[in-house]
Amino acid sequence: MRENDCNSNPVFYYAIRTITMSGEDAPAQQQKAEDQKQETKTTEQPKAESKQESQPATEAPAASATATAAEKPPEEEVFTYRSLVLSGHGGYDKVKLQVKKGKPTPKNGEVLVRVKACGLNFADLMGRQGLYDRLPSPPVTPGMECSGVIEAVGEEVTDRKVGDRVLVLHRFGMWQEVVTVIAGHTFLMPEGMSFEEAAALPVNYVTAYMMLFEFGNLRPNQSVLVHMAAGGVGIAATQLCHTVKDVTVFGTASASKHEAISQGGVTHPIDYRTRDYVEEVRKINPKGLDIALDPLGGSDTHKAFNLLKPMGKLITYGAANMLTGQRKNLLAVAKTWYNQFSINALSLMHANKSVCGYHLGHLDDEPELISQVVAKLLELYGQGKIKPRVDSTWHFEQVGDAMRRMQERNNIGKVILLPEPKKEEPKKEEDKKEEKKEEPKKEENKKEEKQEEPKKE
Amino acid sequence: MRENDCNSNPVFYYAIRTITMSGEDAPAQQQKAEDQKQETKTTEQPKAESKQESQPATEAPAASATATAAEKPPEEEVFTYRSLVLSGHGGYDKVKLQVKKGKPTPKNGEVLVRVKACGLNFADLMGRQGLYDRLPSPPVTPGMECSGVIEAVGEEVTDRKVGDRVLVLHRFGMWQEVVTVIAGHTFLMPEGMSFEEAAALPVNYVTAYMMLFEFGNLRPNQSVLVHMAAGGVGIAATQLCHTVKDVTVFGTASASKHEAISQGGVTHPIDYRTRDYVEEVRKINPKGLDIALDPLGGSDTHKAFNLLKPMGKLITYGAANMLTGQRKNLLAVAKTWYNQFSINALSLMHANKSVCGYHLGHLDDEPELISQVVAKLLELYGQGKIKPRVDSTWHFEQVGDAMRRMQERNNIGKVILLPEPKKEEPKKEEDKKEEKKEEPKKEENKKEEKQEEPKKE
Repeated sequence: MRENDCNSNPVFYYAIRTITMSGEDAPAQQQKAEDQKQETKTTEQPKAESKQESQPATEAPAASATATAAEKPPEEEVFTYRSLVLSGHGGYDKVKLQVKKGKPTPKNGEVLVRVKACGLNFADLMGRQGLYDRLPSPPVTPGMECSGVIEAVGEEVTDRKVGDRVLVLHRFGMWQEVVTVIAGHTFLMPEGMSFEEAAALPVNYVTAYMMLFEFGNLRPNQSVLVHMAAGGVGIAATQLCHTVKDVTVFGTASASKHEAISQGGVTHPIDYRTRDYVEEVRKINPKGLDIALDPLGGSDTHKAFNLLKPMGKLITYGAANMLTGQRKNLLAVAKTWYNQFSINALSLMHANKSVCGYHLGHLDDEPELISQVVAKLLELYGQGKIKPRVDSTWHFEQVGDAMRRMQERNNIGKVILLPEPKKEEPKKEEDKKEEKKEEPKKEENKKEEKQEEPKKE
Repeated sequence: MRENDCNSNPVFYYAIRTITMSGEDAPAQQQKAEDQKQETKTTEQPKAESKQESQPATEAPAASATATAAEKPPEEEVFTYRSLVLSGHGGYDKVKLQVKKGKPTPKNGEVLVRVKACGLNFADLMGRQGLYDRLPSPPVTPGMECSGVIEAVGEEVTDRKVGDRVLVLHRFGMWQEVVTVIAGHTFLMPEGMSFEEAAALPVNYVTAYMMLFEFGNLRPNQSVLVHMAAGGVGIAATQLCHTVKDVTVFGTASASKHEAISQGGVTHPIDYRTRDYVEEVRKINPKGLDIALDPLGGSDTHKAFNLLKPMGKLITYGAANMLTGQRKNLLAVAKTWYNQFSINALSLMHANKSVCGYHLGHLDDEPELISQVVAKLLELYGQGKIKPRVDSTWHFEQVGDAMRRMQERNNIGKVILLPEPKKEEPKKEEDKKEEKKEEPKKEENKKEEKQEEPKKE
């Protein structure tokens, strides 16, 4: 089952290192150089899948092969699987659908999962623009979460078996038909949970839970500000707030989403496009908030801090303000950086406030912590206290449209990607034609060209 | 009972404003100027108590009287009480024992307390040096906590009665034989609690409790760093840590105090004078700490932050590093400022950490919050889970020695001041002689001259 020869390939080694989250030192500098070389080679022309070995499904497809095809049993060569690959930083068209060859084999402690649904996250949008440091350099398969069925288990895996329905949380590489991951990164799906729900849960609910309960210490009668309340984390946070008695949720979203977020539990929806949310919160809670969740960054972090009452907690977990269009907007990035919140000990003391930073992508080395949180979330799901809301599902072929939906803030709930081919189209990936992945599909190309220019906002 | 005319005196108004904690706007700018003028007038020569009217006992004695003595009933004039007054910023001799005339009268919502014991806090030491912004300018009576017996109640006080044994938490002004305070700032002492214990509880235990449970969210199996573990907050924090299952306490203190703090619950005592506490903690907990309490400031705040594991919380609540001797040490102050911890949102996010600032003196406007915490503390006391440790008791005459004991870190537990005169000495305050308070007592003067120069450390 083991493929030790793969360790001679530095890219492969890197992938394994990140998969195992073992924390051991890798030759990072050397790896970086290798990645960059690859990027140069492959950004415009992602390599064809003919190079793919039976390496872990999360590996970037362009790894220069050191293990030759001759070393593989012939039956594994015919196995192919669809994979979304970020070919370079840029617009929606940089995420390409590829077909990879060679069945991934779970190593010691790993399982092979046949993926049924994947979650799309803000981090994926930022990663595509080169703004997310936890995604390795292209070519790389994005995707931090998925759900599916275990198809094979590696040695030393005792608590998972073939046929188990699982949800998976991983740093990257989940947007594929099959993935191999450490068994400890999979969690058994409860009865009655759909694959779409399962793929919608890990990132958003773990994030919301840890912010509200580990940092926020949310308690009865408190008040919470939730930005982007119709988004994945927003909906998760709103639901989790209501697992505590009499919590008031202020939620920002555009007016068209107010009915939905009100039904979802937002006490005071605020249309941030037409109102000053600071004023709106102060009108209702003159003393301010107990907890402010800040996914925006820049000047909004300052506003959130100032809105806190004494003993209040600001939890900053993103910089969505950097993301104003399809392509990296240097002005927005610079502005968000320039306005970045900073504070010293004395000011914090005088204010009696707490400032917390949360970044799930940097919790790689804390599998136990994450497992505990997922266990609690699945318990809450079982009790009917939380339920992921799926906004829409998109086949891998439609990943550009899916990203656009989220980028343009049209979603209410989670945007889900499905590995299975779109029914209306001929299943081209079964033809194993290279051309299909070399260029974006025509109809998508047209749409995306309209969006090539960064939006002026 | 009311003295509305006092509102025409801005100093008096200021005192009332702070006493009532009403949160209403005061003419702060004007007040500041007034304070400074007074300081100039009175720093070297504290005004005699002949100016004292029957104003709230917490008021600074130097207020220029607008209510004349003629307005007072003659019987109140003969009432005198001992009061410690900070006459100006500087060494131990700046806190002078005075005798004030005129019985304080509790106004609406207030009670008059006959004080039995007072707590000494780090903030008082800093206030004496002019390093504590929550103490009004001299002349002023310091003291944030005391215990005693209610001797009179004002109108509209329904939940306190004459004879009630209470502990009191207040911004300043408690180092007196009698004080008038808002009834809501008093808390009934449980059965079996001594006045010394009661005076030792409010500041240290409220501070430790709010840090550990409001900000820190302390839970089973976590680890906590407690600096100055033999001090008031240190002992309170250690005891409170053990109200949660299997909490590991790292406590810094000089070696001579290790036996005491071990018995008190510190799991790993660290002699910060001979060991690098960062290394010591890492040796035992390679991953670091869940919570670090930081009363030191400066470079120690950075160390505490770096010692946190992911999802860890730093709670900074002081700058004891500024306090290196009896007098303000500008070098120490500058160094602490220069090394002051500062952080931006992105660094916090990447670290997955929380930084909290706590300052009880800035929670004036949160009496409900404080009351809830005191109620919980008294419940824990009743259950035998916490018990203030009194290091030593000192009569008002010995306040310089008491402060020195704390300043030089010789105490294990709380340093308590007793308003009642020292038995061995003639009760000079009954002689009502002005001279006694105009100059520091001879024997104290001698001792303190040795300490006039800031220590070179």
